Amino acid sequence: MIVNVGDDEEVYGVHVSADLDTVLYTLAGRAGPQGWGVAEDTFTVVETLGSLGVETGFRLGDRDLAHCLHRTERLRRGEPLSSITADVARAMGVTSRLVPATDDRLRTVIETDDGERLAFQEYFVTRRHRDAVDALHFDGAPEARPAPGVLDAVTEAIAVVIAPSNPPLSIWPILAVPGVRDALEKADRVVAVSPLFGGKALKGPAEAVMRTLGLPPGNAGVLAAYDGIITDLVVDRQDAADARHLEGDVRIHVADTRIAAPDAAVRFAEHLLRLP
Amino acid sequence: MIVNVGDDEEVYGVHVSADLDTVLYTLAGRAGPQGWGVAEDTFTVVETLGSLGVETGFRLGDRDLAHCLHRTERLRRGEPLSSITADVARAMGVTSRLVPATDDRLRTVIETDDGERLAFQEYFVTRRHRDAVDALHFDGAPEARPAPGVLDAVTEAIAVVIAPSNPPLSIWPILAVPGVRDALEKADRVVAVSPLFGGKALKGPAEAVMRTLGLPPGNAGVLAAYDGIITDLVVDRQDAADARHLEGDVRIHVADTRIAAPDAAVRFAEHLLRLP
Repeated sequence: MIVNVGDDEEVYGVHVSADLDTVLYTLAGRAGPQGWGVAEDTFTVVETLGSLGVETGFRLGDRDLAHCLHRTERLRRGEPLSSITADVARAMGVTSRLVPATDDRLRTVIETDDGERLAFQEYFVTRRHRDAVDALHFDGAPEARPAPGVLDAVTEAIAVVIAPSNPPLSIWPILAVPGVRDALEKADRVVAVSPLFGGKALKGPAEAVMRTLGLPPGNAGVLAAYDGIITDLVVDRQDAADARHLEGDVRIHVADTRIAAPDAAVRFAEHLLRLP
Repeated sequence: MIVNVGDDEEVYGVHVSADLDTVLYTLAGRAGPQGWGVAEDTFTVVETLGSLGVETGFRLGDRDLAHCLHRTERLRRGEPLSSITADVARAMGVTSRLVPATDDRLRTVIETDDGERLAFQEYFVTRRHRDAVDALHFDGAPEARPAPGVLDAVTEAIAVVIAPSNPPLSIWPILAVPGVRDALEKADRVVAVSPLFGGKALKGPAEAVMRTLGLPPGNAGVLAAYDGIITDLVVDRQDAADARHLEGDVRIHVADTRIAAPDAAVRFAEHLLRLP
């Protein structure tokens, strides 16, 4: 599982890897119901920081913070993010292979229509993704190398699946790592699952971001975002009409893409591997 | 109030100022009953770190950690410890002036009888002060400068009071800051309160450390530890005999030095200012 690190950020002096941790907590069955953080976490540290006058718009739970503190310490000692992540996955009983796209510093920078440049978490968490996104920059991407295991995972896969994500914000930073796009272009099958339901994302700013970046609306925009990369696009039942209207080389499949529970996720993944 | 920073240490990647925080929490009425940390603190972060395989011999509570995280962030931005401490004191409603002995890096290093050199918290917390202390080193002391306010506090005081502390471990690192000893030698009155009760410390390794460092037993050792610095020594009722046996220039006073509650501490401090 290759995960975006463009959202990584230093908050309260600790290295937050929001996407890596969300995937990790989810696979460990411990994800918070809000879509981030650890389930039933407490907020004693941020509340105490708040009492000391620290701006605490970024609500990092105590357990979540412990993960970040552990990561920060080991990164400072010079260990690569990928091996820290592998150790944490093991400690949490996660057996899937979980790899950051790169061990190097790659940061998504949001350029707003006002010409401001925001760090990802500032845009997403602090300002609640209300700014219109005019352009994305992936700082550090040209020098970044794929983390150990990333290219092998693509090459060895029966099918590469791009999970239902915000294409520009969560997948483009992975594609920006030199070598990843090439490997995907050579893969036999790359299946993207659309994040849209009736043309809209369940949550988050996917449609808005795609629109202000100049992509077409709906699944045509998802296709455009993954242009040259994917062989298959799975759209939700609500968007079945797209399967008929979209043209090109990409095969469009219709499925129930709303995954409520872990066992449904397993069934859906098996379905993706059996796509015609 | 001038506080030792020789015990400061980086733990879990955060800057722990054990003595500063203990004094601060005590003045704020929030000290833990065990003599360190915050009362009724939780330990979610260290427990989570433990689950990730981190060695967690140092039990830092969540609120306590928040203080350390806040300090670490501001130190990294280049702010001096003294101004961070002043801000935290203000945020906690503490009106006493609380100053670290120095803003520079000064660390107490314990040399054991095996010739090992231990960082203070390793000796004190991790190894529970069971090693025989052969010598003390105050790393960084020669280059350290007194923090702003330290020398003024000594010069302006009606009487300087050395609180009932472990003289070598908690007071010597303050005396090691160039300029502090000189200022004390020039002060009219410097009153030390002995940490001994019937020749023994209430807790901690004071007698053992003083013995292995070659100081005489009992209050004679306290006198020797503060040689040249103090004008008065206050000993507990249980050690009233010392008042008759100890000879020299230092005036020995007998009082009930066991301070159980904040109001008793206030009365005791007033008593010290009225010493004959």
